[in-house]
Amino acid sequence: MISESNILNCFQHLVEDLENSNVILGSGDDAAVIKSNTKDLVHSLDISKVGTHFPENSSPEDIAYRSVAVALSDLAAMGAYPSFISIGLSSKIKEIKWYERFTSGIEDILNEYKIKLVGGDVTFGEISICVNVFGYPYKSIVKRSGARSDDQIYITGPLGTGRRGLEDWKNKKKSNYVESFFRPKIQFDIAQFISNYATSCIDISDGLVKDLHSVCKLSKVGAIIDINKIPITTDIEDLVYGDDYQLCFTCSNENIKHIKDYNFYNIGIIQSNPKIEYMRNNKPVSFDKEGWDSFR
Amino acid sequence: MISESNILNCFQHLVEDLENSNVILGSGDDAAVIKSNTKDLVHSLDISKVGTHFPENSSPEDIAYRSVAVALSDLAAMGAYPSFISIGLSSKIKEIKWYERFTSGIEDILNEYKIKLVGGDVTFGEISICVNVFGYPYKSIVKRSGARSDDQIYITGPLGTGRRGLEDWKNKKKSNYVESFFRPKIQFDIAQFISNYATSCIDISDGLVKDLHSVCKLSKVGAIIDINKIPITTDIEDLVYGDDYQLCFTCSNENIKHIKDYNFYNIGIIQSNPKIEYMRNNKPVSFDKEGWDSFR
Repeated sequence: MISESNILNCFQHLVEDLENSNVILGSGDDAAVIKSNTKDLVHSLDISKVGTHFPENSSPEDIAYRSVAVALSDLAAMGAYPSFISIGLSSKIKEIKWYERFTSGIEDILNEYKIKLVGGDVTFGEISICVNVFGYPYKSIVKRSGARSDDQIYITGPLGTGRRGLEDWKNKKKSNYVESFFRPKIQFDIAQFISNYATSCIDISDGLVKDLHSVCKLSKVGAIIDINKIPITTDIEDLVYGDDYQLCFTCSNENIKHIKDYNFYNIGIIQSNPKIEYMRNNKPVSFDKEGWDSFR
Repeated sequence: MISESNILNCFQHLVEDLENSNVILGSGDDAAVIKSNTKDLVHSLDISKVGTHFPENSSPEDIAYRSVAVALSDLAAMGAYPSFISIGLSSKIKEIKWYERFTSGIEDILNEYKIKLVGGDVTFGEISICVNVFGYPYKSIVKRSGARSDDQIYITGPLGTGRRGLEDWKNKKKSNYVESFFRPKIQFDIAQFISNYATSCIDISDGLVKDLHSVCKLSKVGAIIDINKIPITTDIEDLVYGDDYQLCFTCSNENIKHIKDYNFYNIGIIQSNPKIEYMRNNKPVSFDKEGWDSFR
């Protein structure tokens, strides 16, 4: 029988390589110890579940990579850079090979973003990965609640690439979109840049409609969105589907001069009226709230 | 249908009450922000699963309380006090009442240890709670790896109370042991005291045999244990069962004078020979490694 120790051994080399980092003590003890840092700590967590957030037969490398990537995206949305992570893994798989491949996916993303794994826990059950991410502000934190009337609304890239990627993968079709789903790029460089100018920011993980609703609700404002200006991949469902990991941010009119050289998409404007109005070809479009507030 | 927002609303009052704490920004945004602290951060996580770590029909309050308690115990074992937590909850329960009761169990333990909930995630699936705990050293960190030859080995209380509590609960028998299982007391006061003198420390969550093995392995030493000196509740199985949340620590002979007024149990001595020898009535007793390294 495969034991917890067998599984933890797969991760051991990742948590041992902590030299030159701000991690004083990694795995092996009851807890990790992280060197005191003068910057505020930014922390978020995200649970990914096979069957819900991934197809059942996804590769262990991709499951690992994507679970961490989507959790890191919350740091980018706050204007924070990533520093370390910890992982709570639940799995009922009995083959050690699966854990070795899972660990290799974790290693890929640790290397890509130059972050450290500081600890974790493993338990038996349906496959579920709780990823805890930790980082520090590039400059200052960008909240969801800072959008003000007349601010311009931007998104950093096209919507629906993850959705199309999953569809292509299911149809065994080779396309660049597949990577958008399994190995999404997290917008840290853009986050660093816009954290100087953005009044609010969110990552588009739950779909633009739901995520923009969060920003407007917390900022106590509304918005007018021109759907024709949104770069969509497949169809209007891309606005509610999610899995995009682009950022949606707002910027005051005084500051838009600083960001004009970037290829951000200006999709609308914040209004004081707390209504979010979606327009297509000058006609209003409405979205069903139930469609994008599913429990997953 | 119950939505993620409905569930998160149950927790909202806990994460809003963050005044006078070191949490700058709690739930609502993509991440929590914790004020910079000059002390090193101590972090651990623990997954609790209904069916594995709890009986299926445990009350939601007890599931919540115990999941957090067992995670906090890792901080005590490191000589650290708790400051804040975050929770990744997976559940397939559709009744909002269950989440309200779960939240009330969380609130009980937050109040008991004066700690804050800074954020979390909810997803659909078999009931599983990933609790992330964060704290700071009382004085300095106590590692597992610090035990030295001739150090005395202590445990802070009897073994097997959690095991007996679960048994009593299953037999619908009222006893004080039931609380030991569902609402274990975490040894922070003792941890603060012994962190001045202990050379190594671990919490006895996986059973004394396995946990002492960890200490000896990391300290590159062995031990001689007198089973007759161990306060057991039921029988010798108490040494391998776990769920105790007492601390097992080592102390040098020079420092034992400082701890002599406490009712700790001196159960043995560290030896340089890397073997752990258990003696009962002067006869050796051996434990089957497989018995206490199960994957759970």
